[in-house]
Amino acid sequence: MPARVTPGGLREFFAPRSIAVVGASDTSGWARFVFAGSRSVGFTGPLIPVHPVHRTVLGRPAVRSLRDLAEPADLAFIMVPTHAVESVLDDAAAAGVRSAIVLAAGYRELGEEGRALEDRMIARASAHGITLLGPNCLGFVNAHAAAAPFALTVPPSLRAGPVGIALQSGALGGVVLAFAHAHAIGVSTLATLGNEAMIAATDVLDYLVEDDATRVICMFLEQITDPARFADAAARADRAGKPIVVLKVGSSQAGSRTALAHTGAIAGDDAVVGAVLRQLNVIRVTSIEELLCTGALLGYQRWPRGRRMGVVTTSGGACDIIADRAAAEGIEIPEFAAGTAAAITPLLPPFAAVRNPIDVTGYFLANRRTSALTVADHVLEIATADPGLDFVLFTGLTLPDARPDDATAAMLGERARWLGERTAAAPVPVIPVGHTCLNLSGYGRDVLAEGGVHLLPGIDLGMTALGHALRWLEGRGTRAAAVTAATGVTGRPVGAGRGAPAPGGGSPWSEAAARGLLARSGVPVVPGELVGSADAAVAAARRLGLPVVLKVCSAQIPHKSDIGGVAVGPATEAEVRAGYERVRAAGEAVPGARVEGVLVSPMRAGGVELIAGVTVDPTFGPVLAVGLGGVWVEVLGDTSLRVLPVDTGDVKRMLAELRGSPLLRGRTPVDLDALAEVIRLLADTAVALDGSLCALEVNPLWAEGDRVEALDVLLVTRSEPPDRSRHDEAGRQH
Amino acid sequence: MPARVTPGGLREFFAPRSIAVVGASDTSGWARFVFAGSRSVGFTGPLIPVHPVHRTVLGRPAVRSLRDLAEPADLAFIMVPTHAVESVLDDAAAAGVRSAIVLAAGYRELGEEGRALEDRMIARASAHGITLLGPNCLGFVNAHAAAAPFALTVPPSLRAGPVGIALQSGALGGVVLAFAHAHAIGVSTLATLGNEAMIAATDVLDYLVEDDATRVICMFLEQITDPARFADAAARADRAGKPIVVLKVGSSQAGSRTALAHTGAIAGDDAVVGAVLRQLNVIRVTSIEELLCTGALLGYQRWPRGRRMGVVTTSGGACDIIADRAAAEGIEIPEFAAGTAAAITPLLPPFAAVRNPIDVTGYFLANRRTSALTVADHVLEIATADPGLDFVLFTGLTLPDARPDDATAAMLGERARWLGERTAAAPVPVIPVGHTCLNLSGYGRDVLAEGGVHLLPGIDLGMTALGHALRWLEGRGTRAAAVTAATGVTGRPVGAGRGAPAPGGGSPWSEAAARGLLARSGVPVVPGELVGSADAAVAAARRLGLPVVLKVCSAQIPHKSDIGGVAVGPATEAEVRAGYERVRAAGEAVPGARVEGVLVSPMRAGGVELIAGVTVDPTFGPVLAVGLGGVWVEVLGDTSLRVLPVDTGDVKRMLAELRGSPLLRGRTPVDLDALAEVIRLLADTAVALDGSLCALEVNPLWAEGDRVEALDVLLVTRSEPPDRSRHDEAGRQH
Repeated sequence: MPARVTPGGLREFFAPRSIAVVGASDTSGWARFVFAGSRSVGFTGPLIPVHPVHRTVLGRPAVRSLRDLAEPADLAFIMVPTHAVESVLDDAAAAGVRSAIVLAAGYRELGEEGRALEDRMIARASAHGITLLGPNCLGFVNAHAAAAPFALTVPPSLRAGPVGIALQSGALGGVVLAFAHAHAIGVSTLATLGNEAMIAATDVLDYLVEDDATRVICMFLEQITDPARFADAAARADRAGKPIVVLKVGSSQAGSRTALAHTGAIAGDDAVVGAVLRQLNVIRVTSIEELLCTGALLGYQRWPRGRRMGVVTTSGGACDIIADRAAAEGIEIPEFAAGTAAAITPLLPPFAAVRNPIDVTGYFLANRRTSALTVADHVLEIATADPGLDFVLFTGLTLPDARPDDATAAMLGERARWLGERTAAAPVPVIPVGHTCLNLSGYGRDVLAEGGVHLLPGIDLGMTALGHALRWLEGRGTRAAAVTAATGVTGRPVGAGRGAPAPGGGSPWSEAAARGLLARSGVPVVPGELVGSADAAVAAARRLGLPVVLKVCSAQIPHKSDIGGVAVGPATEAEVRAGYERVRAAGEAVPGARVEGVLVSPMRAGGVELIAGVTVDPTFGPVLAVGLGGVWVEVLGDTSLRVLPVDTGDVKRMLAELRGSPLLRGRTPVDLDALAEVIRLLADTAVALDGSLCALEVNPLWAEGDRVEALDVLLVTRSEPPDRSRHDEAGRQH
Repeated sequence: MPARVTPGGLREFFAPRSIAVVGASDTSGWARFVFAGSRSVGFTGPLIPVHPVHRTVLGRPAVRSLRDLAEPADLAFIMVPTHAVESVLDDAAAAGVRSAIVLAAGYRELGEEGRALEDRMIARASAHGITLLGPNCLGFVNAHAAAAPFALTVPPSLRAGPVGIALQSGALGGVVLAFAHAHAIGVSTLATLGNEAMIAATDVLDYLVEDDATRVICMFLEQITDPARFADAAARADRAGKPIVVLKVGSSQAGSRTALAHTGAIAGDDAVVGAVLRQLNVIRVTSIEELLCTGALLGYQRWPRGRRMGVVTTSGGACDIIADRAAAEGIEIPEFAAGTAAAITPLLPPFAAVRNPIDVTGYFLANRRTSALTVADHVLEIATADPGLDFVLFTGLTLPDARPDDATAAMLGERARWLGERTAAAPVPVIPVGHTCLNLSGYGRDVLAEGGVHLLPGIDLGMTALGHALRWLEGRGTRAAAVTAATGVTGRPVGAGRGAPAPGGGSPWSEAAARGLLARSGVPVVPGELVGSADAAVAAARRLGLPVVLKVCSAQIPHKSDIGGVAVGPATEAEVRAGYERVRAAGEAVPGARVEGVLVSPMRAGGVELIAGVTVDPTFGPVLAVGLGGVWVEVLGDTSLRVLPVDTGDVKRMLAELRGSPLLRGRTPVDLDALAEVIRLLADTAVALDGSLCALEVNPLWAEGDRVEALDVLLVTRSEPPDRSRHDEAGRQH
């Protein structure tokens, strides 16, 4: 294993003052991009093509080998074919080059042979003390350090800004930069990650969390490979007030889990990723536009103080669209205070309605303006002083595509400067937004930059970003506990949690054994006696109270109902006898099943049935799923997930998240503290099984008032259950 | 009422060959926009400012009055103050002008006084035989007729195209045109509607449905004022294969319905609008970007033949994003056929995975291309021949912001032409899409126009639009019946369906009376006897079978459970007696309640409980809501809505739409034909009550196998229920 790359080390890596481009030639599109990108960001250091044959490349004098450099370059961008990479690394080492990007593909992504090649190449780099980004990587842009060893288009005069970006897809780098440029979203460092053989996504995340130039972090992730470090970085980012926005793909991929437990189907890969990101207070988005717009809002704007929004527009239609989108995001649009309305009224034509959201109308067009500020601007100023608002959304600034006549340009410049000052100084934040997602023109970018104004790309994306930002702000701190907890679990050596059992794998325990384990952990289990004869069943039923439930007990029959191994509700001695014989026979008829006996329990009626289960995610380890029984889970998929461990506060939040949660406040309201405590104990029991756990599921978990009982338990572990003598004892425990 | 405006009349209205701009002056922003817009669309006819004082306006000679025109103008754009409008209409009439746009506000939107002013102004126009758009209106653009009497910015060299647009918000006109221009979405006619005093939204819809230049219709609607004509136009558009896409706002506004019936809360204004639009196969969107992107897809592209999508990209990240979005839209991405994969493999580098979606990788950048076509193009050509695909999404064409060097420009031009031909001729449609929502540059627009290629604005919007398009294609024809039916109901005089009772209004019927009405209509009602004594209750219970349900019966007590007026499950004579006395006493205790007696019915257990109710929407008339009982409606809002009447096929589709529909296929599967027939009869009963209906609700409606019974009925009408003698008889009917 190469040494861990540190944020400090990456700070140097991402700020090279001289760059050698190895394999550059006049016909290489990649080399062209690196040279053009360097011009775009204003790279001032030496940029030296290296080629064994050509004496000049793209107009610049070239050297034959890195060994021929007069001074060592800070960074070598290696774009030679795969087979030549290692000898270039030797050259780099000889030349004193300590940082390299490897563009070539044909490594780990090809399977075993490629993986061996990659491991050898990385070992070589490590031995030379070279820090390496890639392979299969298109490089990076650091706008603040004015460096762009980046093998895709960099827009002209790329702006430096607060948005740090890490991408597990190189080709998207160009796409992301183009959209950012079009909307004047300035980038601090954008890094494409390639195969992450030495510098991983979490290393770049660590670097961005510590990078002073970065105020918000946007990531495109295909997978989270190191959950412990990811969680740790997310916790530090949350504490530092540096939001992380993630476009995590893969929601359409089918997950694979042990098929024995119901919760396995619930806790699919993507659902777990979603739960983890929520636990870590990381914003999740589904498009590149949403990624960058959310980043821009959090990176450029003052953050809203709450959900009460004022809206100042120049269009009634925009008011309507904003109101609908606000409702969808849970953002309030309260009435203006009386003083606000009174101050606005004289500014508007008599037919205009003075209300929030407000349309100042287009009546100013009746006569050419003589002052730079518009009615919209004056109304905005009044609205920002309204004591009942947490922020004001403003759609009043529209910029033309091209520079207008001098007089108009002067007025627009003055407005932008005024708006910039207002935005900075107003009692509450002002969020300027365009009507739709339209590129800014070069002129528009300049006017806004001079005014210190940032315009979000359209109402729709802007409202989506506001929803994300508000949830993020509300999630800060309150989720820190969950983050720490998750870090605790996933803080095992990388990969230790991997290799969850294949579907159908693992050894189920008999119910009696599983009940025993839970009972010893303090989880209340419905009373039950394991019996071996009809007479014993009748005696047990008398002790436990009729009516009862009879279940055949066998480690080989995890799903007893399916084979007729359950009798629900025998209420007389004769019925208990008949039930015993029937379920016993059903169990005996299952080929290969060793029947331990029949479990007799009292029947529970009324109350609420839940399901609580823990399965093991291949990336994130044990995951708790909680839901209401029956259709809620089976038809509606109404569950809440958390990576373990959890505390009772977490479990209560999980219960509150369920759409069916009103059922818990029914005729005999469930004691949520008691219920959460039981589920927490169940989860801890699963965690205590450590690497052996495949699935632990209580279904149903019955609750009525402050009574909570596990009615049915399924436990599957990798190893065989402990010996039988302990089960019988445990089975009787209640 | 002015005469109905016809599509033929509007064809003339929207194609003026000469335009007078009344009230134009050098300081009028509106006039500036009209003159600039006319230049932009290439208007060639006379464009004459009319002003009482100025002799020239914006460099053009002006006349003092319309009466001074040498020849009558086809259209007068009247932008004078409100008080001067009527005299200008007189001038117009005298000058032989037959069409006018009125910009002034201060009419109906001000309330009663303004409404009177508007009515008088419209009466004047009607008397003069003038067709009038507005008032409070910014005009229109007809790109095909090269006319732009439009008082907002028109982008330079606006392209004519297939997208017809009608907007109930004038100010959005400029926003819509700017976005359309940025994405080379050509417009046929864009009309802003103002107060719709003479030309209404449905008139413009009719015109666009018949307009040959329009292939798809995009609307921004604040309200649907004439549902019958809207439905009729939608049906004709559906038959003609002309999709309608609607951004209908108001989803955040609270609806108001009779609070007595549960279904009132379900069938809120916006839920009904959503149901109606689905019934009419009208696409509903939530943003301007989505409106225009969906319009562009359906207006420019060949329509997909089904849901099986091939994907050709230059980025693995794009493949991931597309796959996730496809899954969300229900679009399949099947494996390539073996022949397709075999043909593609030799084109790609060895490390590339040949699968659908395919990333052709950026390896072509290693060496400058010598032919215009790229690997992506060749792969696209192969993919379109795959027999298992219905269409191919292509992200392989990226155009630079500015015109590149001549050689590159020539290659891009050749590629665009090739792609245009390929798109037109390929066995399945090719849908080219950009990576994100970025403006096309002027150069990009030209290249695409020459090639006959249209590029959708980004993967996210493109996938959303594809989802809409596929649902629209699948909904064609199958929904025609529903459309006709809805037209039938709403085909009463405009406004006749308005004025539904205020919440709490209307007269509830006693349950016995309501049961009688349903029973006479053929709806199976649970047997029941209305009794006046405990003895009679016991006798009835013996006849009906124990256990029973006892309910106090009074028109003044619509919610019997709330006051303790229901006894569920008395199973012995003593219990029946006790129950009778209790519920009777509870009823008698309600101040002002006249107790008709106690209704005795047998208790139903097992089966499934539904809720089926009809309420009256102020715009669309009677609306049927169907859902599963209990938490399904109350907690989850899981209901399906339809404007009435419906046939049993519609009701079966409603049942299938419920998330809880699996419950109907439970242990004793419900006979869906029988259930749908009962609900259809219930709905017909409500329709037959015509203007008198406030709410008719059966809750629960019980079903088990082929047995379906109304267990509880609530009926509220505007007028008092019929006299009592009929109730008792009906109450006993079963």
